[in-house]
Amino acid sequence: MGQFIADHPDRLLPADPGVRDIARSLYKKVEGLPIISPHGHVDAAVIEQNSPFPDPAALLVTPDHYVTRLIHAGGVPMDQLGLGSQPAGSRQVWRHFCEAWPAFEGTASGFWIRQEFAHVFGLQEEPTADNADRLYDALQAKLSEPGFRPRELFKEFNIEVLATTDDPLDSLDSHAALQADPAFAGRVLPTFRPDQYLNMAHPAWQDNVERLISAAGEGATGYAGYIKALEARRRHFVERGAVSADHGVFTPYTVKLDDGEAERLFELGRSGQAGPRERDAFEAHMLYQMARMSVEDGLVMTIHPGSFRNHHTPTFEAFGADTGHDIPVAVNYTEAIRPLLQDFGTAKDFHLVLFTLDETVFSRELAPLAGFYPAVYLGAPWWFLDAPDAMLRFRSAVTETAGFSRSSGFIDDTRAFCSIPARHDTSRRIEASFLARLVAEHRISEERAQELIMDIVDASPRRVFKL
Amino acid sequence: MGQFIADHPDRLLPADPGVRDIARSLYKKVEGLPIISPHGHVDAAVIEQNSPFPDPAALLVTPDHYVTRLIHAGGVPMDQLGLGSQPAGSRQVWRHFCEAWPAFEGTASGFWIRQEFAHVFGLQEEPTADNADRLYDALQAKLSEPGFRPRELFKEFNIEVLATTDDPLDSLDSHAALQADPAFAGRVLPTFRPDQYLNMAHPAWQDNVERLISAAGEGATGYAGYIKALEARRRHFVERGAVSADHGVFTPYTVKLDDGEAERLFELGRSGQAGPRERDAFEAHMLYQMARMSVEDGLVMTIHPGSFRNHHTPTFEAFGADTGHDIPVAVNYTEAIRPLLQDFGTAKDFHLVLFTLDETVFSRELAPLAGFYPAVYLGAPWWFLDAPDAMLRFRSAVTETAGFSRSSGFIDDTRAFCSIPARHDTSRRIEASFLARLVAEHRISEERAQELIMDIVDASPRRVFKL
Amino acid sequence: MGQFIADHPDRLLPADPGVRDIARSLYKKVEGLPIISPHGHVDAAVIEQNSPFPDPAALLVTPDHYVTRLIHAGGVPMDQLGLGSQPAGSRQVWRHFCEAWPAFEGTASGFWIRQEFAHVFGLQEEPTADNADRLYDALQAKLSEPGFRPRELFKEFNIEVLATTDDPLDSLDSHAALQADPAFAGRVLPTFRPDQYLNMAHPAWQDNVERLISAAGEGATGYAGYIKALEARRRHFVERGAVSADHGVFTPYTVKLDDGEAERLFELGRSGQAGPRERDAFEAHMLYQMARMSVEDGLVMTIHPGSFRNHHTPTFEAFGADTGHDIPVAVNYTEAIRPLLQDFGTAKDFHLVLFTLDETVFSRELAPLAGFYPAVYLGAPWWFLDAPDAMLRFRSAVTETAGFSRSSGFIDDTRAFCSIPARHDTSRRIEASFLARLVAEHRISEERAQELIMDIVDASPRRVFKL
Repeated sequence: MGQFIADHPDRLLPADPGVRDIARSLYKKVEGLPIISPHGHVDAAVIEQNSPFPDPAALLVTPDHYVTRLIHAGGVPMDQLGLGSQPAGSRQVWRHFCEAWPAFEGTASGFWIRQEFAHVFGLQEEPTADNADRLYDALQAKLSEPGFRPRELFKEFNIEVLATTDDPLDSLDSHAALQADPAFAGRVLPTFRPDQYLNMAHPAWQDNVERLISAAGEGATGYAGYIKALEARRRHFVERGAVSADHGVFTPYTVKLDDGEAERLFELGRSGQAGPRERDAFEAHMLYQMARMSVEDGLVMTIHPGSFRNHHTPTFEAFGADTGHDIPVAVNYTEAIRPLLQDFGTAKDFHLVLFTLDETVFSRELAPLAGFYPAVYLGAPWWFLDAPDAMLRFRSAVTETAGFSRSSGFIDDTRAFCSIPARHDTSRRIEASFLARLVAEHRISEERAQELIMDIVDASPRRVFKL
Repeated sequence: MGQFIADHPDRLLPADPGVRDIARSLYKKVEGLPIISPHGHVDAAVIEQNSPFPDPAALLVTPDHYVTRLIHAGGVPMDQLGLGSQPAGSRQVWRHFCEAWPAFEGTASGFWIRQEFAHVFGLQEEPTADNADRLYDALQAKLSEPGFRPRELFKEFNIEVLATTDDPLDSLDSHAALQADPAFAGRVLPTFRPDQYLNMAHPAWQDNVERLISAAGEGATGYAGYIKALEARRRHFVERGAVSADHGVFTPYTVKLDDGEAERLFELGRSGQAGPRERDAFEAHMLYQMARMSVEDGLVMTIHPGSFRNHHTPTFEAFGADTGHDIPVAVNYTEAIRPLLQDFGTAKDFHLVLFTLDETVFSRELAPLAGFYPAVYLGAPWWFLDAPDAMLRFRSAVTETAGFSRSSGFIDDTRAFCSIPARHDTSRRIEASFLARLVAEHRISEERAQELIMDIVDASPRRVFKL
Repeated sequence: MGQFIADHPDRLLPADPGVRDIARSLYKKVEGLPIISPHGHVDAAVIEQNSPFPDPAALLVTPDHYVTRLIHAGGVPMDQLGLGSQPAGSRQVWRHFCEAWPAFEGTASGFWIRQEFAHVFGLQEEPTADNADRLYDALQAKLSEPGFRPRELFKEFNIEVLATTDDPLDSLDSHAALQADPAFAGRVLPTFRPDQYLNMAHPAWQDNVERLISAAGEGATGYAGYIKALEARRRHFVERGAVSADHGVFTPYTVKLDDGEAERLFELGRSGQAGPRERDAFEAHMLYQMARMSVEDGLVMTIHPGSFRNHHTPTFEAFGADTGHDIPVAVNYTEAIRPLLQDFGTAKDFHLVLFTLDETVFSRELAPLAGFYPAVYLGAPWWFLDAPDAMLRFRSAVTETAGFSRSSGFIDDTRAFCSIPARHDTSRRIEASFLARLVAEHRISEERAQELIMDIVDASPRRVFKL
């Protein structure tokens, strides 16, 4: 069989021997640097409570929609993957995963999971239908060891900063507890994520707005109370260490409405009478308002547009959101984001990180925007694009226009805690590969490439996310 | 001059010596496998009647719009290429082709034709203005040999399955004759292609609909008879061995209308009163209906959207359709195909193969869709994208999200019978090249790559097209 | 430190040793060929007057929006880069540039400037904050030498043809003087650029139109005078040696209006009453009219669509146009350009060169259009795409459909006179790199690649631009 490929020291590095040598030496510079994760979806309570992970399926399969989706495409129903009201048991879920493993060949998830097997759990085997039960038992045994609890892994993974994603009304008590705990040395930061308070089309919007105003409106009512409450909750996040506010929108359309019009739309939405045009206008106005607040309170603004959420209604109704059928659409940034940039594109210390699932905007819109506006940073390849070839396409598409200084540094965006080291390691290897090619083509010097990779991996995320 | 490049054993394989060695060994695994061609445009009567091909121009130039278009771009009028009411003679057409040959350097058609020269006709020469007449005579001599008749080439090419593309009212007699002929061992299958019966904008739609209802409506009339007749003709195709129904649409927009509304639009169209909005809605409804019928009768559904047909009206009027000026446009799948997928995306045994001429949907829409919906398969790179670099871009764009298990296998889609081996060989070499890079980068093991290439070339088309 | 990378003989060539050897030999064929620059923004008066360039910042920084934009993105205000009503002094601008130099690593501008340093000015140093003043003095000393005047550099750069871009009412006196000057051997050609006379949305349109009609309407008034005047000015350009007319439009939308409707829109615009729909229709009509005139007078027509001009209004108001915030948008060519191609796509000797900032149209629209219509040529990668990786993506995207014969040859499009040799050299190295890969993959023969690179670099621009 030969070596388990997750153990190969040159994995993901370029095949050409000369370029590989350069890449290897660049990678060595950053291999051991601490992990900075300024955006992701790990739950702070998991770290705070430090409870053992329950079982292999609950750790690696059920909550990770990258994984469940591809098994589902192969014909396994969602309930067999641990979702829904009558989910299959963990061992059964795990068997489905092991049988489906060949479908992950060549995928980003396949690389990460193989890395986790080898480097977190010390397993040198590919999952198969035959070894499923044995692997389950081996992993279960590991998970009950004290070294595999979240806080121990946090340290073992060499994570310096981990940002979570939180509801505006979240108490952030877990964050406070971690910050107050002298036994925990890491930084776990909240992120303000107000989508469901800004987008009238969300079923919970009306209820969210009432709760928001009543909790944080400081006595003000209506639109004024709503704005005041958002500002107050952002302050609360800042006090708990937040560095950014994150916005998931269908389009990055922004607009500046006057207060009267904004209030009119707000009241239409509150009474359930806003049509699609009013809802879109209000959301665009609130994205603009979020930028204004970021300019004022210093939270870095990140925008993730272009995902058609919950594409398959029957799956959404039976199994909820984030179950693998958020499907990208084409994005227009240049015209949509312009009203925001007109007013804030050169605002002092404003940082706006733009992400995309639509690769076509990398060279066409994002690199040109980030290459002019001091506020704009190129978000790292995200979601379906957070994979080796896509990362190389990203660098190729943006570097010639925007260089290296305008990008955000790697973002893992993950719910899968144990995949964090594999994801960051993948990014470091790919950055080394891209730079190595430029060195081999005499486009940058090797000395400069060594400085650049340090900047990309370590200094960029600190600078862009104000860490 | 050195070796004729069409004879080089490493043609199309990667330049890096290490990667090439791996690619060569992967290619060897599949080089000799039989050809499975589940979608194309060869006429079944050509195989059935087994008449000699008339002459080199009629075989290689005039009917192949990939070829005529580029000669036309170089300034040669279409009638000089054998088209229209007063076409030039074959020898003259051939001379134009030979003079234009340098323009094919680097094109997909150039590779295929060079392969055909070397491997079908045993010619080791590049066409030139000087050798045009000599090549014509040499090819003409070959074409009159018994070994160069369609059935002999079918066997020589090692074709196991060849699907044709047929009008819903076609008798399929040639298919029946071939199936009944003990002297013919191949499978030649019809494909149901109803575009001109579904799209009211087609000039023949009204006439087609009347003929359809009268031929197969089983006594029913109006919209009910129309639906009944389509179902009946699909059954006829299934009985004649069809495995798929193919749909060429401008957009993949789908909608489910209730019967009353569908009937209303149908009657508007029938009386010539439907406007563009009604026509589009009806076509979208019928695409949805075709999916419903595929769920019921088991025909694999293939969709080819995004081609602006007959872009240059004067050429269309003088020389007809399929004369090289169908030009792609941007495609939106995520929202357009959603109504169909809501209802049939997880339907048992429903196979929906999605093609595109717009590369941007590979990573943005098709890989995410195929990576969730059990019904959805990624169509192989099609038409302008059925070429080495484009195939590599396809694999790079889709694999990290959807792996290898969700793609259709190679589709040659050709009218040019003698190009079939060259096209499939190109695909096999490129699949080997892509996999070899992943092996060299330690992203998959060489053992697994050997299994994958067998699956891609042989098992995938059988599985996806239910062969 | 090792060798200064701008001096490496293999710079920009592929890393693989075998491919590099082939690329090097192809590059050698064209390395010394004269420069043909059929489209750019150098001012003819600069050549005519042959005044020394004032200082390093005025030569390399302030007028080049590729350079100022990225320094601006790093936080330096535009006035500090020499723009606006109270600009910083040259030495201060130069210091900002040197401090910002690391941000140019990996960018196209970075390559060009490094090449200029090494090959125009004989400097082997990277700019830094520390050596800024010393470099400034060294460059300033060079600029005062007689060998560094524009005409001497023109000869030194081996420029054979240089096209400028000119206002329709420009006298073209500098061009006439150069043509009449026996001491100047180069060809400096004007280019007709009428955007601000065609697009009613331009603030100067009304005034331009009045001046145009009065200067060249030959007594006719209104729309008839306007058309007559445009035709007359084109004739004037042709007499002064112009070979092309260039059109910068937001979209390539074209339409043929009848004279009555065109006149109606024209008068609406003239009286300031045209709305957005009327303005767009009139511009589309005039783009069609420009094609008609090109068919008649033989000027090659070039179209550059898809740039959202002056994206940041505050910067535009303070510092004017062409200050780095023209941002691309998605383009649709297939449907938009169709009315023009219906009537002129096969017109005798009509040459239409289509450019794009939206890479997605390379394979989807431009290669298919240029692969059918004799009039259509693929414009070289332009603006944000005029860089090594983007050029390789262009060739990969278009060649398999359109071959090499349908592209325009390299276009430098530059305002930065001293960057011309570096830009053309970059293009030659990249064409050699692309062809070398095809040779190494046995897709074209080395003999043929040697002919092709000569054709691409030298014969194509002469043929396409009728030089």
